Amino acid sequence: MKNKQYAVIGLGRFGSSLAKELVRLDFEVLGIDIDEEVVQEMQDKLTHTVVADCTEEEVLRSLGIRNFDCVIVAIGDDIQSSIMTALILKDLGVKQVVAKALNELHGKVLERIGVDRVIYPERDMGIRVAHQLVSPNLLDYIELSKDYTVAELSVSKRISGRTLRDLDPRRKHGCSVVAINKHSGVIIAPMAEDRVDVGDVMVVIGTNEQIDSFEEEVNR
Amino acid sequence: MKNKQYAVIGLGRFGSSLAKELVRLDFEVLGIDIDEEVVQEMQDKLTHTVVADCTEEEVLRSLGIRNFDCVIVAIGDDIQSSIMTALILKDLGVKQVVAKALNELHGKVLERIGVDRVIYPERDMGIRVAHQLVSPNLLDYIELSKDYTVAELSVSKRISGRTLRDLDPRRKHGCSVVAINKHSGVIIAPMAEDRVDVGDVMVVIGTNEQIDSFEEEVNR
Amino acid sequence: MKNKQYAVIGLGRFGSSLAKELVRLDFEVLGIDIDEEVVQEMQDKLTHTVVADCTEEEVLRSLGIRNFDCVIVAIGDDIQSSIMTALILKDLGVKQVVAKALNELHGKVLERIGVDRVIYPERDMGIRVAHQLVSPNLLDYIELSKDYTVAELSVSKRISGRTLRDLDPRRKHGCSVVAINKHSGVIIAPMAEDRVDVGDVMVVIGTNEQIDSFEEEVNR
Amino acid sequence: MKNKQYAVIGLGRFGSSLAKELVRLDFEVLGIDIDEEVVQEMQDKLTHTVVADCTEEEVLRSLGIRNFDCVIVAIGDDIQSSIMTALILKDLGVKQVVAKALNELHGKVLERIGVDRVIYPERDMGIRVAHQLVSPNLLDYIELSKDYTVAELSVSKRISGRTLRDLDPRRKHGCSVVAINKHSGVIIAPMAEDRVDVGDVMVVIGTNEQIDSFEEEVNR
Amino acid sequence: MKNKQYAVIGLGRFGSSLAKELVRLDFEVLGIDIDEEVVQEMQDKLTHTVVADCTEEEVLRSLGIRNFDCVIVAIGDDIQSSIMTALILKDLGVKQVVAKALNELHGKVLERIGVDRVIYPERDMGIRVAHQLVSPNLLDYIELSKDYTVAELSVSKRISGRTLRDLDPRRKHGCSVVAINKHSGVIIAPMAEDRVDVGDVMVVIGTNEQIDSFEEEVNR
Amino acid sequence: MKNKQYAVIGLGRFGSSLAKELVRLDFEVLGIDIDEEVVQEMQDKLTHTVVADCTEEEVLRSLGIRNFDCVIVAIGDDIQSSIMTALILKDLGVKQVVAKALNELHGKVLERIGVDRVIYPERDMGIRVAHQLVSPNLLDYIELSKDYTVAELSVSKRISGRTLRDLDPRRKHGCSVVAINKHSGVIIAPMAEDRVDVGDVMVVIGTNEQIDSFEEEVNR
Amino acid sequence: MKNKQYAVIGLGRFGSSLAKELVRLDFEVLGIDIDEEVVQEMQDKLTHTVVADCTEEEVLRSLGIRNFDCVIVAIGDDIQSSIMTALILKDLGVKQVVAKALNELHGKVLERIGVDRVIYPERDMGIRVAHQLVSPNLLDYIELSKDYTVAELSVSKRISGRTLRDLDPRRKHGCSVVAINKHSGVIIAPMAEDRVDVGDVMVVIGTNEQIDSFEEEVNR
Amino acid sequence: MKNKQYAVIGLGRFGSSLAKELVRLDFEVLGIDIDEEVVQEMQDKLTHTVVADCTEEEVLRSLGIRNFDCVIVAIGDDIQSSIMTALILKDLGVKQVVAKALNELHGKVLERIGVDRVIYPERDMGIRVAHQLVSPNLLDYIELSKDYTVAELSVSKRISGRTLRDLDPRRKHGCSVVAINKHSGVIIAPMAEDRVDVGDVMVVIGTNEQIDSFEEEVNR
Repeated sequence: MKNKQYAVIGLGRFGSSLAKELVRLDFEVLGIDIDEEVVQEMQDKLTHTVVADCTEEEVLRSLGIRNFDCVIVAIGDDIQSSIMTALILKDLGVKQVVAKALNELHGKVLERIGVDRVIYPERDMGIRVAHQLVSPNLLDYIELSKDYTVAELSVSKRISGRTLRDLDPRRKHGCSVVAINKHSGVIIAPMAEDRVDVGDVMVVIGTNEQIDSFEEEVNR
Repeated sequence: MKNKQYAVIGLGRFGSSLAKELVRLDFEVLGIDIDEEVVQEMQDKLTHTVVADCTEEEVLRSLGIRNFDCVIVAIGDDIQSSIMTALILKDLGVKQVVAKALNELHGKVLERIGVDRVIYPERDMGIRVAHQLVSPNLLDYIELSKDYTVAELSVSKRISGRTLRDLDPRRKHGCSVVAINKHSGVIIAPMAEDRVDVGDVMVVIGTNEQIDSFEEEVNR
Repeated sequence: MKNKQYAVIGLGRFGSSLAKELVRLDFEVLGIDIDEEVVQEMQDKLTHTVVADCTEEEVLRSLGIRNFDCVIVAIGDDIQSSIMTALILKDLGVKQVVAKALNELHGKVLERIGVDRVIYPERDMGIRVAHQLVSPNLLDYIELSKDYTVAELSVSKRISGRTLRDLDPRRKHGCSVVAINKHSGVIIAPMAEDRVDVGDVMVVIGTNEQIDSFEEEVNR
Repeated sequence: MKNKQYAVIGLGRFGSSLAKELVRLDFEVLGIDIDEEVVQEMQDKLTHTVVADCTEEEVLRSLGIRNFDCVIVAIGDDIQSSIMTALILKDLGVKQVVAKALNELHGKVLERIGVDRVIYPERDMGIRVAHQLVSPNLLDYIELSKDYTVAELSVSKRISGRTLRDLDPRRKHGCSVVAINKHSGVIIAPMAEDRVDVGDVMVVIGTNEQIDSFEEEVNR
Repeated sequence: MKNKQYAVIGLGRFGSSLAKELVRLDFEVLGIDIDEEVVQEMQDKLTHTVVADCTEEEVLRSLGIRNFDCVIVAIGDDIQSSIMTALILKDLGVKQVVAKALNELHGKVLERIGVDRVIYPERDMGIRVAHQLVSPNLLDYIELSKDYTVAELSVSKRISGRTLRDLDPRRKHGCSVVAINKHSGVIIAPMAEDRVDVGDVMVVIGTNEQIDSFEEEVNR
Repeated sequence: MKNKQYAVIGLGRFGSSLAKELVRLDFEVLGIDIDEEVVQEMQDKLTHTVVADCTEEEVLRSLGIRNFDCVIVAIGDDIQSSIMTALILKDLGVKQVVAKALNELHGKVLERIGVDRVIYPERDMGIRVAHQLVSPNLLDYIELSKDYTVAELSVSKRISGRTLRDLDPRRKHGCSVVAINKHSGVIIAPMAEDRVDVGDVMVVIGTNEQIDSFEEEVNR
Repeated sequence: MKNKQYAVIGLGRFGSSLAKELVRLDFEVLGIDIDEEVVQEMQDKLTHTVVADCTEEEVLRSLGIRNFDCVIVAIGDDIQSSIMTALILKDLGVKQVVAKALNELHGKVLERIGVDRVIYPERDMGIRVAHQLVSPNLLDYIELSKDYTVAELSVSKRISGRTLRDLDPRRKHGCSVVAINKHSGVIIAPMAEDRVDVGDVMVVIGTNEQIDSFEEEVNR
Repeated sequence: MKNKQYAVIGLGRFGSSLAKELVRLDFEVLGIDIDEEVVQEMQDKLTHTVVADCTEEEVLRSLGIRNFDCVIVAIGDDIQSSIMTALILKDLGVKQVVAKALNELHGKVLERIGVDRVIYPERDMGIRVAHQLVSPNLLDYIELSKDYTVAELSVSKRISGRTLRDLDPRRKHGCSVVAINKHSGVIIAPMAEDRVDVGDVMVVIGTNEQIDSFEEEVNR
């Protein structure tokens, strides 16, 4: 699997971060941008880099783009270039094309053109940060479904030293603690007598309301 | 707690998404931008909106900004304005100032100035998307620590119909399934005889290697 | 039929000419442009005119655009606006959307989005003018198929006063004269003894080679 | 005749389309533009290309422009350059100068300067498309005179399978069918018993009203 | 005659100077410019002023421009506007149109369009100043023909106090002194015994060489 | 005298015309402009040309500007550069510095700085053209003093064939005809019986009113 | 004396600081700038403020500028405006005109125009800061003449507690301590037994070398 | 001490003046600017110069900036660059960083970042010039403390020839004359019988009121 090959078109803040993480995960990544300066800066950090205008079919063809397993169109603010590039990629037969959309209209066009996955980094990050701001002990979370969430709650001073039996989140709030991350290691499926201390992190599963309710007790 | 008040300065893609989510979570949000058109578009979506240049102390003072519980500086590309605004906010005594940084140097200045929390939305989103691209069955994840991760894995056709006993991820890969999200509901702390079917999502805890290894089996 | 309603978005040289011709043909036409000056100039020439940004769904919706029988997107040079506008029109359920494309890539995107008819005015006009330049007596022509053409040939001094029997284009060149436009009126399906004079125009049907060959004799 | 030589000044959408069609018709074409990038793209498609500023007499003289049989001034949006270039061409003694006009005032100046033929591509194309939109079965048409038109009408389902005797356009509408283009070939001067089927195209001659009236029946 | 009416289009340095001098000579002058600030400054100095774009026929028509005896197009640097304006003026039937040209090509176009008189202020002034620089005692001059010039020569110290008999320019240089401008008044057709003194100015007629030769003696 | 050396700084329409005329009068001229293209065009027309920024003392010094007999500052629209250049020239000890002023304030500064002669080409040309427009037969003129003018009047049809005795301008209008330029040659101090014919030009001396009055008779 | 009236033209960093200090010193100050925003900000800080273009004589005249005792031209970067304004001020008869120069050439022009005092704030401040950087204990200084300086030296730890007799700067370095500024007050003409302590400041008079030499001892 | 090394970043009017003065004081100075032209002009005047963008850590590191004893950030108008550069300098461990601030907010950010000394050249110079304008005989001054000032007063005609006993500033005004700078040399701690003459300069110590009062007498 590690011989999957990625190309990232557009090396702005989002694209370059994505590309560098792929390299860190041990994949080959070709980084492409129309701006020479931007490419020069990424030169040492990606497997290959090239300065190119990806709205021209000839250019993409000559880069052998069709041989890449996945191409990410992370073009910054130029909606037209993003659309044109995505169209050419699909027409050239690239199997998986992922593209960043600036707004919903842009996203819809990308879908119609045949883009396999449309992402909205700024919108999604805005939502994620809103949740973290609202619940100070919520470190991070995953939405399992419209109702269920897995949340990472830090243990506050308020409840430090208490056992799960004392807290009894299942009975009081309806949600379950499925793991506790302590400095000494992670406790999977913790017992009633397991204690939580300041600095520990609980992994909790439940509905949003249940977790909110538990978070409020932790936090009060 | 719901009477906490937020102000968001800069209503670009990130700022407007954050502000709208806070409203959706039932908080009062004041949205501020220097661009009249941008503000007009958000008018109906936020509690209050105002067109203002936040690099002038007078302006922020007259908005009563010091009474807000948390102010988010989500100014787009103008690093200077971001820094000036953040400085004035801290000097006016705002308790919690959160600011978006465009790069690490910018982030460092914000920290020196006394900003309480610096966020890098594009960078973080780039990393998150990279992980999802690499593991097709990885829907989302939380990093508990440098080593431990909670991951959301979709059940592939390959393993559909098997029980946790058959899969035995703990023995084979070292990680644990702490919940299964089925259409019929969420099973917390599932038993060995619980079955996974295509469309289900498993919540797994383990080290990155353990989860990668399990994901590879799921995916093979 | 005359109660069909048209809307033309973009009132540049092509769009305004199209809109004015529709009015001349006795149809109701709504002209829309983002530039106030342009709209002002067309005000007296179209049934209705409005200054509006058609890349915003709200705007198009408030104009009741879905009630128009046909909407022509004649936006000048801004490919992005052209695409966005066309997408919104189709999503709002406009039955017939016609759009001008600047190049083939643009045209392809428009088709994928669901535009009913894509036109390339400058390209088509370039081709048409080329043919007229090459054959000085060719006034205009219609391509019936890849092979067959209906051409309008003016009568040169060289052949003035001769009858169709003398010229005998069918035998000598393979093409037929199906009509002669004389000052005194049009002769449909002219006879062998009909005479052609300078100033007359012959309507000829045949393959391109046949017509070229005849035109060369006319012209020699 | 095929050794006539053309020069096209201005290689925008109209100019390049015209130039490429002339090459396709087997003529030698020199393409000139002031923009290097534009010229580079046409390099392989035209006989000769050159980057030059045609508002300088020296430049045009050194290109031996006076030896070309016909020079087309297809300069995009710069009215001044268009006028200056046309003036120099006529002063250098070029026999046939054809120039594109952006509006009527521009056209008038070109005529006063001595340009042999002034064309208005966008205006003419607007008119042509208007006619096609209005009559869905009208594929294309030629205006023979202010009154008479040759039109290409596609056969609709409604009249499919009927003979010309059934339709009798001459008696009912006043216009004549001078040819039918069928997949099997073109029937010139068709007989009363000739049948039209969906997919066929009729070539009709008559006044605009007669053709409109017939088209309406075809279409009803 | 003093009821002749003038309009000056373009109130830059040349146009405003011309317009003000016409007013000083007691004529009615309408000054027109597209720039509001420029018009405001001339408001008190001309009979009428108006802010208008003279490249639009409607505008010129509504100003009743056809009733003016003479219209001067003194548009600064915009060759296209100058040409368009001049064309409309001639088409509207203005009897005398005078236009300033920036270079010879511009001048030629103006002539072809039918402009009655083309002037080149900067070029002509350059020539005039050159002559004055070259001959320090030459105050001003008129070229009567290619050969003959009327020159205004100041009397230098060198020849002060001498009579025309002493100087005898006709014999020595071939040119004639036709007038002497003294503080006490002008002597027309001066006699041989008339004396010239420092501060006097002689009006001399002759060929350029004759006058150069005399000027050199005056100046030596 | 012909070995006087001139430098012209600023090769716009006025400067280049002046420089070319000096060359035509057989003097050595160095042309200087900051714009390479402008210089290139004058290269073959002046004795020497150089691309240089004349607001830097070093540059002017290195050109040996102090050795020129006369330097003309004909800088187009940049008042600051004009002033700076003039100041450096005087400080470097150039004997005669002539400078073009755009307006009176500019002219005053140039005089204070020590410029030897300030000229206003557009203003002066505006005045000159105004006079010529007003009197159709006035070809050119020199103002001898505030009151006296030498004027060049063309002979109109109206007075063609008459002798000076018939016309008697001295008695009727107060002004004198000091010369008549005929195709056959110039008549200096013409006699009463000398005849004027259409196409001849009279040189007249008198006050402005006298000449106006005579011109009106010529013209009536 | 306090009824002297000042006007400051140009309210940038230098001009506004100067104007505010004059107000602090109890004088009436009129602040003028062409930029409305700038003026608005100074409105409450100066006696009078006005938005005006000072390169127009009318404007300055209407402000009654001639009645001010001193006008400071502190125009930022526009050398031309600075010169024009200064010229008008002198021509209107303002007694004292002080003007800021951006460089020496600018300064020279201002002097030629008759400006009473030319200042170079950035240049002078650069020199002043250089001296302070070089001598860490030198707080400030005045140059009495080319040789003599009055300097303000802070007392370092190194010499703290010593008497002037111990230090004996006159004998060792040639310079004199004429005052000591202590928290308890200033000692004028201090005695040999007066002690200096950390935090005190000595006022020293001497040549630059003498003071450097003393400073070095203080600092060693 | 003379082997201290300075770097000046930003060679505008303030920075270049500071750098040149440091060179004049015999120190090694490296001048850096992002503008090549600016650097070229300073090339011969500083020890070393380099064109570089100082907002990039790599660049500053490669210049060995950490080895300089003192770095002055004199960047003109770009607040963001000023802040970024200052931050990098402190992070790289430069001992003394001095930075110019454009306004107080800018200055505050610089201080928070750890800049050792913030200077406001234009503001300080504005204050200094205000004092000099207000007191015509005040040549220069140092503020010893909030109350005490050392001032340099020129001797006016009014008091010329009088002795310090006559003037008795200590008794009449409360301030002391600690030195008199005469053409013949400086008199330190002058006696009561020492005489002051026009052209002499007195160094006076006292409170602002005392000095104002004395200056008024000198000046009356």
